[in-house]
Amino acid sequence: MANNYHARIYVTLRSSVLDPAGTAVESGIKQMGYSGVEGVRIGKYIEMKLTAEDETDAKTQLDRICDRLLANPVIENYCFEIDRLVSG
Amino acid sequence: MANNYHARIYVTLRSSVLDPAGTAVESGIKQMGYSGVEGVRIGKYIEMKLTAEDETDAKTQLDRICDRLLANPVIENYCFEIDRLVSG
Repeated sequence: MANNYHARIYVTLRSSVLDPAGTAVESGIKQMGYSGVEGVRIGKYIEMKLTAEDETDAKTQLDRICDRLLANPVIENYCFEIDRLVSG
Repeated sequence: MANNYHARIYVTLRSSVLDPAGTAVESGIKQMGYSGVEGVRIGKYIEMKLTAEDETDAKTQLDRICDRLLANPVIENYCFEIDRLVSG
C-alpha cells in the first residue's frame, strides 16, 4: 500500500567550491551595517510530495532524484528530511 | 559580550505564487519515471555566521537581512533557525 510523504531537500555547494553569489550577498549585508556576518553560502531548498511503499522506498527515490536532477554531485552535496503524511 | 551564531535561512515562494522552475523540475522527475511526485516548490537555503549580543539581537539582525536583502516580501516567505556557537 502506498503512503504519502513530504520531503524537504537541501542542496548546498561543497565547502571546497567557491560561492560568488554568497560573497556578493555577504558584501551587501556588510553594506547594510552588519559587519559581524561572514561565511554566507547560498543553496537550494526544495519541497515536494511523493508516494512510496515505505520510508526506505521514499529515500531511494529521493536519492536518485537528487543525484540525477537536483544536485550536481561534482560540486554539490544534498540531504533531505521526510515526513509521512497521515490522511484522515 | 558578543556571541557567535550559526543561522540557517529558508526563503520560499508564497503558496499563492506560481513556481515555473518547480513545475519544470516536477516534469523532469516524472520523465524519470517517478509519477508519484507532485507539488515541487523551489526555494533558497542560506547559511551564515554572525555575531550578536544575544539571541534576540541575532533574530533582529536576521529579520532585517531577510526583509531587505534575501527575500522579496511581496512574493516570498522566510524563516530561520539559529544556533549559538560555543568556542573552546
